Amino acid sequence: MKISARNVLKGKIVEVTKGATTAHVRIDVGGTIVTASITNEAVDDLGLVKGMAASAVIKSSDVMVAVE
Amino acid sequence: MKISARNVLKGKIVEVTKGATTAHVRIDVGGTIVTASITNEAVDDLGLVKGMAASAVIKSSDVMVAVE
Amino acid sequence: MKISARNVLKGKIVEVTKGATTAHVRIDVGGTIVTASITNEAVDDLGLVKGMAASAVIKSSDVMVAVE
Amino acid sequence: MKISARNVLKGKIVEVTKGATTAHVRIDVGGTIVTASITNEAVDDLGLVKGMAASAVIKSSDVMVAVE
Amino acid sequence: MKISARNVLKGKIVEVTKGATTAHVRIDVGGTIVTASITNEAVDDLGLVKGMAASAVIKSSDVMVAVE
Amino acid sequence: MKISARNVLKGKIVEVTKGATTAHVRIDVGGTIVTASITNEAVDDLGLVKGMAASAVIKSSDVMVAVE
Repeated sequence: MKISARNVLKGKIVEVTKGATTAHVRIDVGGTIVTASITNEAVDDLGLVKGMAASAVIKSSDVMVAVE
Repeated sequence: MKISARNVLKGKIVEVTKGATTAHVRIDVGGTIVTASITNEAVDDLGLVKGMAASAVIKSSDVMVAVE
Repeated sequence: MKISARNVLKGKIVEVTKGATTAHVRIDVGGTIVTASITNEAVDDLGLVKGMAASAVIKSSDVMVAVE
Repeated sequence: MKISARNVLKGKIVEVTKGATTAHVRIDVGGTIVTASITNEAVDDLGLVKGMAASAVIKSSDVMVAVE
Repeated sequence: MKISARNVLKGKIVEVTKGATTAHVRIDVGGTIVTASITNEAVDDLGLVKGMAASAVIKSSDVMVAVE
Repeated sequence: MKISARNVLKGKIVEVTKGATTAHVRIDVGGTIVTASITNEAVDDLGLVKGMAASAVIKSSDVMVAVE
């Protein structure tokens, strides 16, 4: 599958925390930790576990820009 | 200002393209290009130009996870 | 690539309209038209054209529920 | 109420799962299950239960396109 | 129609700017201007014009919190 | 920090409810309650508590428009 989302940041999962319905997955992308809030079902379906190679995928319209 | 969005990726603007109402800003984050789709007004208000230090800011609920 | 987004609706592209920076892609999903607003770059990169098989992909946290 | 969101997919609720703060509502849209992640408060306020007619509502800027 | 989105801010449209595909609609909500970026089609379909009563509708998962 | 998000609504926190992973923060913005669904980590990191001055921040592409 190839997706229209412009941002696919390759990394490695460093933490998976499941809640009641929502899980937090932390991915180390070149030294920066990116946090994804996804469904528990997606964690199970993709078999996401610590140490696994994974990408953070973000649609461009969900990216803001900040300056100091 | 301190924001709840968990993902603030520091980088440098490499391209600003304004459309009729929507602009695309590309930020080099440690060698990876992140594209942000924001309003032309935000580009003007923040004075975003190529070469400027800037961060890509993303709410965790807008981050997906992909595996091969 | 396998993605955490829970909603992948298979269909066929019925219209691609490019704007200055943002394109609208309409996908027929079992008789219902789903509109996606994505970047022109994504349209070019994926080679999206009318008649092509494609899926509308939506993260669960972006789906609302409405009742009459 | 008439809303700007372009995608209103009519269906029937097949499952409602409440978590600590976030609920998952699954809607059968012409044979395809669409999952919505919404607040528990919304579930209570709209009285969402299995078997009820409901629509999945999605803003076009939250729809991505994927191809094989 | 009743929607799960928790935030429905009533106001009055003060500006509608159409781009090539994306429009910006500004709504005065009790003295604060809220900007919505929506499709040109939605503007036409709802007949949005300056001076019209309208609400800004926002899903809770799209709201961030900032402190000084 | 100055952000591209066009909507920064100043108010006061009236309620913070933490779930297993996701928290709901309610902000009184000039008499209207705005609900934000954010991570528990953000609540802790920003030290969000009832009575605190805070803003609801929303990207324009996440705002819809509704009319009666």
